[in-house]
Amino acid sequence: MTDQPLILGAVLYEGFELLDMFGPLEMFTAVAPEVLQVVMIAEKKGAVKAGSMANSPMPTCIADYGFDDAPDLDLILVPGGIGTFAELENDKMLSFLRDRAEKAQITASVCSGSALLAKAGLLDGHRATSNKMFFNLAVTQSDKVAWIEAARWVEDGKFVTSSGVSAGIDMALAIIARLFGNEVAETIAKGAEYIWHREADVDPFAQYLNEGSI
Amino acid sequence: MTDQPLILGAVLYEGFELLDMFGPLEMFTAVAPEVLQVVMIAEKKGAVKAGSMANSPMPTCIADYGFDDAPDLDLILVPGGIGTFAELENDKMLSFLRDRAEKAQITASVCSGSALLAKAGLLDGHRATSNKMFFNLAVTQSDKVAWIEAARWVEDGKFVTSSGVSAGIDMALAIIARLFGNEVAETIAKGAEYIWHREADVDPFAQYLNEGSI
Repeated sequence: MTDQPLILGAVLYEGFELLDMFGPLEMFTAVAPEVLQVVMIAEKKGAVKAGSMANSPMPTCIADYGFDDAPDLDLILVPGGIGTFAELENDKMLSFLRDRAEKAQITASVCSGSALLAKAGLLDGHRATSNKMFFNLAVTQSDKVAWIEAARWVEDGKFVTSSGVSAGIDMALAIIARLFGNEVAETIAKGAEYIWHREADVDPFAQYLNEGSI
Repeated sequence: MTDQPLILGAVLYEGFELLDMFGPLEMFTAVAPEVLQVVMIAEKKGAVKAGSMANSPMPTCIADYGFDDAPDLDLILVPGGIGTFAELENDKMLSFLRDRAEKAQITASVCSGSALLAKAGLLDGHRATSNKMFFNLAVTQSDKVAWIEAARWVEDGKFVTSSGVSAGIDMALAIIARLFGNEVAETIAKGAEYIWHREADVDPFAQYLNEGSI
């Protein structure tokens, strides 16, 4: 532990999934800011609208930093969402992830966020997972990834990938436990009255693989 | 069901708890927008910063409407958070909740949001619950409320109140089931890979009552 807090960069993009982002951030922002702080980043600083598979009108959040002025990142959080499809074709996003993940201690994704990491080539040679409904979207980004179909989340060194949406909360608590100890994670889960699913390998949704494939 | 979608007003204020708001909104925005749409409201439209018990730097979100130009609301969602303490002294907030809850079909709160509903007098004569850590904050707002200590959430007619933070997600799914049918709620929970705690009376956190009292 250094004297400086670790900095977690949460990467926003148009059409990000609300709970992919704010479930994990609820947990990460409950860690003492002396040891961990969250910054909100997007390609350009300013307003970023969330997305929904139902195509509903969605809330807007603010990126405090753009890719060009984001601080050094110790941790990176990449959400999924309907906007993933567009970002897979966004070279600036893929370059940012590639550059920053190389220097980061942990890069974590939720849901279809792992498709972006895979497209950037970051998961090659690693085990990883993705959301159930669009699992093939991740798989088709790289055949050099050991894709795990049944997992709430997968930790493989510096890359931690979770299953769909809500699984990101369980993954975030596992990352907090790894970095700051299990007691910190347990206290945060209790404070949020969150029933933490602690087993990475127990995945009640594995049976629905690719039901949403398009 | 009318031809117009129901409008859910999500009430932001400085220091709102992230997951209190965006857990339920993940579920509500997964309902077809033809039958339900979410609008983000605050006292004044524009940027509103979330809060954290850990006093961490927090994300900012946008209120698309102020109290003065918010549309008619069929549903109201009131989050809790560290900002609740200040809002208990904000007459504009209490008046807004009082005026709008009277006309709404359902007014729902998460966590310490029920303290605001109680202070506004809305819960008098009703059963209600609140978060565990600051349960007394809600209780001390009104002695005319039947406060339920052990409940994931409590439905009493048009008022639905949940326990702390994560319990709001379970409550949101119950409201969706009540309005649109159980199958809709189950499909949404599955899509979000959310392990829905369906029993309102089962509360694994009841043992921690008032541990955070100040």
